[in-house]
Amino acid sequence: MNYKEILDRVMAVVKPEENIGHLANYIPELGKVNPNKLGVHLSTTNNFDLGIGDNLEKFSIQSISKVFAVCLAYKTMGEGIWKRVDVEPSGNPFNSLVQLEADKGIPRNPFINAGAIVICDILISHLEKPKEAFLNFVREISDNPELTFCQKIADSEKSVGYRNIALCNFIKSLGNIENEPEEVLDFYFCLCSLEMTCQELSKAFLFLANGGQKVSDKKVILTKRQTKRINALMQTCGFYDESGEFAFEVGLPGKSGVGGGIVAVFPNNYSIAVWSPMLNAKGNSYKGMMFLEQFTTETEASIF
Amino acid sequence: MNYKEILDRVMAVVKPEENIGHLANYIPELGKVNPNKLGVHLSTTNNFDLGIGDNLEKFSIQSISKVFAVCLAYKTMGEGIWKRVDVEPSGNPFNSLVQLEADKGIPRNPFINAGAIVICDILISHLEKPKEAFLNFVREISDNPELTFCQKIADSEKSVGYRNIALCNFIKSLGNIENEPEEVLDFYFCLCSLEMTCQELSKAFLFLANGGQKVSDKKVILTKRQTKRINALMQTCGFYDESGEFAFEVGLPGKSGVGGGIVAVFPNNYSIAVWSPMLNAKGNSYKGMMFLEQFTTETEASIF
Amino acid sequence: MNYKEILDRVMAVVKPEENIGHLANYIPELGKVNPNKLGVHLSTTNNFDLGIGDNLEKFSIQSISKVFAVCLAYKTMGEGIWKRVDVEPSGNPFNSLVQLEADKGIPRNPFINAGAIVICDILISHLEKPKEAFLNFVREISDNPELTFCQKIADSEKSVGYRNIALCNFIKSLGNIENEPEEVLDFYFCLCSLEMTCQELSKAFLFLANGGQKVSDKKVILTKRQTKRINALMQTCGFYDESGEFAFEVGLPGKSGVGGGIVAVFPNNYSIAVWSPMLNAKGNSYKGMMFLEQFTTETEASIF
Amino acid sequence: MNYKEILDRVMAVVKPEENIGHLANYIPELGKVNPNKLGVHLSTTNNFDLGIGDNLEKFSIQSISKVFAVCLAYKTMGEGIWKRVDVEPSGNPFNSLVQLEADKGIPRNPFINAGAIVICDILISHLEKPKEAFLNFVREISDNPELTFCQKIADSEKSVGYRNIALCNFIKSLGNIENEPEEVLDFYFCLCSLEMTCQELSKAFLFLANGGQKVSDKKVILTKRQTKRINALMQTCGFYDESGEFAFEVGLPGKSGVGGGIVAVFPNNYSIAVWSPMLNAKGNSYKGMMFLEQFTTETEASIF
Repeated sequence: MNYKEILDRVMAVVKPEENIGHLANYIPELGKVNPNKLGVHLSTTNNFDLGIGDNLEKFSIQSISKVFAVCLAYKTMGEGIWKRVDVEPSGNPFNSLVQLEADKGIPRNPFINAGAIVICDILISHLEKPKEAFLNFVREISDNPELTFCQKIADSEKSVGYRNIALCNFIKSLGNIENEPEEVLDFYFCLCSLEMTCQELSKAFLFLANGGQKVSDKKVILTKRQTKRINALMQTCGFYDESGEFAFEVGLPGKSGVGGGIVAVFPNNYSIAVWSPMLNAKGNSYKGMMFLEQFTTETEASIF
Repeated sequence: MNYKEILDRVMAVVKPEENIGHLANYIPELGKVNPNKLGVHLSTTNNFDLGIGDNLEKFSIQSISKVFAVCLAYKTMGEGIWKRVDVEPSGNPFNSLVQLEADKGIPRNPFINAGAIVICDILISHLEKPKEAFLNFVREISDNPELTFCQKIADSEKSVGYRNIALCNFIKSLGNIENEPEEVLDFYFCLCSLEMTCQELSKAFLFLANGGQKVSDKKVILTKRQTKRINALMQTCGFYDESGEFAFEVGLPGKSGVGGGIVAVFPNNYSIAVWSPMLNAKGNSYKGMMFLEQFTTETEASIF
Repeated sequence: MNYKEILDRVMAVVKPEENIGHLANYIPELGKVNPNKLGVHLSTTNNFDLGIGDNLEKFSIQSISKVFAVCLAYKTMGEGIWKRVDVEPSGNPFNSLVQLEADKGIPRNPFINAGAIVICDILISHLEKPKEAFLNFVREISDNPELTFCQKIADSEKSVGYRNIALCNFIKSLGNIENEPEEVLDFYFCLCSLEMTCQELSKAFLFLANGGQKVSDKKVILTKRQTKRINALMQTCGFYDESGEFAFEVGLPGKSGVGGGIVAVFPNNYSIAVWSPMLNAKGNSYKGMMFLEQFTTETEASIF
Repeated sequence: MNYKEILDRVMAVVKPEENIGHLANYIPELGKVNPNKLGVHLSTTNNFDLGIGDNLEKFSIQSISKVFAVCLAYKTMGEGIWKRVDVEPSGNPFNSLVQLEADKGIPRNPFINAGAIVICDILISHLEKPKEAFLNFVREISDNPELTFCQKIADSEKSVGYRNIALCNFIKSLGNIENEPEEVLDFYFCLCSLEMTCQELSKAFLFLANGGQKVSDKKVILTKRQTKRINALMQTCGFYDESGEFAFEVGLPGKSGVGGGIVAVFPNNYSIAVWSPMLNAKGNSYKGMMFLEQFTTETEASIF
């Protein structure tokens, strides 16, 4: 398969399309991004690596970070984490308190805000210096020792984060948060503020396309079984209220963020990261979805 | 891969396990089934065909029939069906009215009861003799011209079907049912009463593992793109409130029924049908889930 | 208190006001009513009786009938009825299925549709000829042996009554309906089709302002304690999602119907019936509410 | 009416009854109260004043304080407060977040926690020193210049107040809180910590039985119209999920608190305060409810 040709061809189609949607401007800092950015990067399990457009520019990965968090928690604690957070799609907007009340404090999955907050609580309870440990984990899987949080973004989110404060205190009142809400939220806002390029993201997710093992240095990050589970989870829950649509249109496990990034994984083949800041009504990158749909159509690649 | 050996080995493990759960005895006729039945049948895209246990015994396929219904509607009407029913997981017990009210009469997906009822309404509007047309469709894909509805089961369900009557009238009041509720429900109860063996089920689903084309006579049932979508839908929504768990444990698209049947599809490889009548708390076959989990572990087969 | 003068004065203010709102045209027959009708009738416990405007014209009393139904059930069965239906405000639009599911089939109160349907079921179980018995009861309390159902209205409601069919079957599935849904609904639609004038309505409610005893012939309909309870129920639940607003603005127990009628009771003083067909957004008569608010302001009459 | 005789008689019946229920021990300090306390105090509009049992002992009035808060806000801001908080019963447990989400941040009424928090926000925005102003208001209406907050109780509630923190931040995220959640909550916890005796409470509520005017010094606290509205509000919303039951059993406007206090008002007649710390399943004083039910039965006093 000539991936370069296909990337070029899809880019030529998607780039000039009208850029519909909105920026995630409820977070002040994210509202300042250039809406016309478009970058793509592909990394294959046989060590092929290729990007196009703004693939080397940093952006706020936001919720994509939740995949790193759950991988680190899974690696650290094993199957025990699934007692604190479920693995089912939520069927509701990503930050709804309603379902949480019905489910007695057990979030539906680790990719809705409630679930990621519980994962943060788990990491704080089990790691000595959780922020450092988290950074080290992401640096290792992306082979980039310089990745770091963006304090400005974290502060910006915190300044308007009333709903997440509500969520965390609500779960605490339901008994599923061990630490003080303030500490948990500080970690959570930090984690979402991570900035990466498409290239870095694509590389960081490659072990999930490779049975849990890094391609670069063969280091095992997760077991095969754990890897399969994380991929299944991204498939069913990775796109908020549009997970079914993504499975339907793209047919690969993946995760999106309100910064406009999307990463998808084709097991045994490749990982791919796309970035375009304008979001559709469900909060997923408009052109990112379009690019991946056409890319998987052209490559006839899909797990289904 | 020596499938026979693996089937034997998994059967040897699962068969003697304690048979936990309950029969679907809210439908009187289903409460009369022998709870210890266990059958499995596998059909591969390269024409290999193999069964074990009670694989040749008829059972009530119940909700598995919803896959046939949506395939026929998709084939008949094309993409238009997705205006009447969505493709997102429901995140709620399979027959909840709550979500339907929030979603204004558009069921979350065609595999919850509400969605299947809307699909029935679509089929009635577009087919001259919907019951016959439906039977002919299932007979064709299973290469068995003798398949038929079980009136006794249909009547049994109807006699206690107050919740489905409520559902159908509720959707009608919300404007998403075109025909008279009584006619729609009559078709719906019929459809769920279909009786098949594991062998027949496995064969009937094989085209979904083969890009939409039957293996036996090469006839095209659905396009590749349509097939991919149906598989994606089974992956995210096929197991009621346990779809995430199934993706997690088994890692294949599939569909279950309260009669104790489960069918799963491994694209480009095989379809497999399992039957064991005792259900877990979420309404899926207890030993069926166990069998498929161990089978996919042994074969290391999973789309993830 | 010179009631005649006050009625005249309030009428002079309310009559020329712009008539805002909509007819209950989801029931075809109710959409045909002259929207500018306005009638008022007052009956006092010391036998004073006075009307104004269209007070002698028949209209469809609709949900006001639910008060007669619960009075008859209470009289017939005593406190036992409160095991089948609760006495709490619903806090939700009057026909919502959501709350019913949460409350496991026990409707919040007898004045929401679900509750009135359960009351119908109770009456069918306990009375030999429920329709006749019901008519006889209303005829007796209104001293009018000619009151009767309007089959045309009943049929009109039935023809679009999918939501009530859904409700009744849903409650049946939750175990709180004893008879066949079809029979219960037939009775329910009949009951709502009752046609009365403001004068008849005002007279029929007078026993509730008189400790349970008719003023005309001293016949005891309900005990004092029962009467107090029905009044309390009308106070907290008589106006759908606007019960608090009515208590707030008018300060009397009462009941409204989508035909544009409202009846209110001032214990130990009077009952008053108002009719004006245009409804506000919550389904209560726009000018009816306005009239009662000004009337109680002028008379300085309120239970608070 | 010989109130003394009736109070004695009812006390003689209620006192020896088994004391069923639980203390509000989710607030540590409230769990330490002697569960067998029972006090009653009655104040009439013609200046009669009478108590029995532990009527002179201080207890934590908790939610009863919400009546003072809404009266002060109403007095200060007039009808404008009803744009920020509704006047409808909630139909749901008193601290549910679900309904708030559906109602877009406008709490159903000022007596659920969400509503009282919004009232606190209003008071902070409109009063220079809200805590002092609030204390002065309560001191004035109770003719007791020494009433004060209990810091120990306030701190105790704060230490476990995660759900209220969640509530306040949630409403802030929905746009209906103007000040910083921390400041609003500090005021809210303070307000709930007020300690009063039955005598003080009964006196403080007497103006609501007297058309808004104090009996002691004729000072007008609220207009007649405002007073009627507050009473209507207590009638429909004063007892959490048991407001209908209270209207049904007691038939007077009132307000309860989880400290075991209940105050009720009989317009133009009296106010009465009862205290007994053991709570029924809905969070209202078990013996308090029993006392008031029997008292209104004996006196045949009820607004209905």
